[in-house]
Amino acid sequence: MQHTSFAEMPCPVARTLDVIGEWWTLVIVRDALVGARRFDDFKTSGIADNILSARLRKLVEEGVFERRPYGERADRFEYVLTRKGRDLLPVIAVMWDWGKKWTKGRTNTRLVHVACGTELTDVMLRGHCESCDRDVLPTEVRPLRPTAAR
Amino acid sequence: MQHTSFAEMPCPVARTLDVIGEWWTLVIVRDALVGARRFDDFKTSGIADNILSARLRKLVEEGVFERRPYGERADRFEYVLTRKGRDLLPVIAVMWDWGKKWTKGRTNTRLVHVACGTELTDVMLRGHCESCDRDVLPTEVRPLRPTAAR
Repeated sequence: MQHTSFAEMPCPVARTLDVIGEWWTLVIVRDALVGARRFDDFKTSGIADNILSARLRKLVEEGVFERRPYGERADRFEYVLTRKGRDLLPVIAVMWDWGKKWTKGRTNTRLVHVACGTELTDVMLRGHCESCDRDVLPTEVRPLRPTAAR
Repeated sequence: MQHTSFAEMPCPVARTLDVIGEWWTLVIVRDALVGARRFDDFKTSGIADNILSARLRKLVEEGVFERRPYGERADRFEYVLTRKGRDLLPVIAVMWDWGKKWTKGRTNTRLVHVACGTELTDVMLRGHCESCDRDVLPTEVRPLRPTAAR
């Protein structure tokens, strides 16, 4: 489906959405932040092959992922977040927090406060880590691999 | 287009995307955060009427907006962000910051540090306000109306 492009809008939010606003894209980035690199790694979320291919191609074009060959076969690639891609961590972090607060369901993805290693529960929107009594910025968390199979 | 639902996934990021991940939705939320309330207010971004209607209907169902009658005609409504909707401000704030850093274009939307009233430029990803020398949390900013016509 061809979307209206937000790329030319005079607003950084719209331009960000032009890069990462398609369905599945931030799920792919989330998985990359906890270690997914190869095509099959990203498929564990249930995304169809053709959609995954299209999303990865666009994210490489946009400089969010770098595509690197691996192994001996010339047609095997892995997808590694660039600095630009890793800078999306705060977007994932604040969405994780909003979802914890406002949606119902199990949570097998976890966020840890980098400064003290404490697993965060609902602290993000308050912006405070109760364990080390410091404010938590969305740049100061890291996600952990899911604790159980999806 | 029918999307794969993320609503049942055991991850708050995916469930958040199920609520706000459709094309145009966060542009609508952004506009609401700077004062848009009526159907025509939201149309200034260039969204088609049928898409806007569908997005607003879903966001009311999800409790992100409350639909309120206004004026004397029974068929006039305005759309007001609920607490759940206002809690999306950090999502908009971190996207604004990412877009400022990683995309090219004009910026007529502005963010202000609530604590000191300083207009933020690129501070969010560093998480620090140079004016008042304090860390800036994404909950501590507010967007301003665009400075010029889009």
